[in-house]
Formats: sequence, C-alpha cells, structure tokens
Amino acid sequence: MARVVVDVMLKPEILDPQGQAVQRALPRLGFEGIADVRQGKRFELEVEGPVDDAVLARVNELAETFLANTVIEDFTVRVEETATA
Amino acid sequence: MARVVVDVMLKPEILDPQGQAVQRALPRLGFEGIADVRQGKRFELEVEGPVDDAVLARVNELAETFLANTVIEDFTVRVEETATA
Repeated sequence: MARVVVDVMLKPEILDPQGQAVQRALPRLGFEGIADVRQGKRFELEVEGPVDDAVLARVNELAETFLANTVIEDFTVRVEETATA
Repeated sequence: MARVVVDVMLKPEILDPQGQAVQRALPRLGFEGIADVRQGKRFELEVEGPVDDAVLARVNELAETFLANTVIEDFTVRVEETATA
C-alpha cells in the first residue's frame, strides 16, 4: 500500500478569499511577517499495489477530472513514503 | 521570501466523510484500486525574510493555535523551495 498525495491549489491569478481571511487575521493574533496565505486542499490516496507510471497516470487523470477544477485550480501529484496504516 | 507549507489532516482515528465520499465515487467514475482517501487542508504561507528556527517555531505555534484544531486534526510544517511569486 502506497500513499499518493494530490495537492490542489487555486491558480495564482485567482482570488483566494479564504487565504486572505487567514492572512488578515494573523496580525490581530500576534503573528507578523506573513506576506501572503493561500489555502487549498490536500488529498491522501492509499493506492493498492505498487505505484508505477501507469498508476500515477491514472491518479493524474483522476485529479484532473475529479479532484481539481482545472479552470481555476492547479494540482500536483506525488508519491509519499509507504503508508503504515 | 520563502514559502512555508502547513498541511492539516484529520487524525487517523477521526471519521472523514469528505474523503469517504470521494473514495466511494471513484469506482463509479472508473477508478479502481484506491483503498482509502482522506481530505485535508493545505496552507501556503509566504514568509518575509529568511526562515530560521525562530520563524518555524512561530509558524508551528500559528498552525497549532489557528490553522488546525488539534483536538481532531494533525498538522505538519515544512519549508518549500523559495517561492518565485
């Protein structure tokens, strides 16, 4: 069992009100020096069997068609160390 | 300017209905072989100045008090390559 992580973030040119809300709250909470915050989604997929190029291509397709809205979001797919769970 | 990434995921023992919904939808969409899906949040913080241990300690405190609900969520803090944006 291997873990594949898909990170989905709004494209840089798309306004991110969630991230902005966090960023504006930080000085009030005593945290200075954070110029920008962007918030996105992280999916951890537990894949059965070994992760080869074919599996990664499938996960890429899955992320593109289902996990991310590619009109406004970018995504990255990467393999993490084998999960223990 | 450096980018610090905070990943916030539900603890393994906490039910993740969002992730389950994704996982159950996958076979219907033609994607087999995914045993489990968990969905969490990813925050990208653009930190002014160099990222040293003191800054990382601050971000850790920030994540613990503000970005994550540590009763039900785990978080990780890591530095990514210097952002170009």
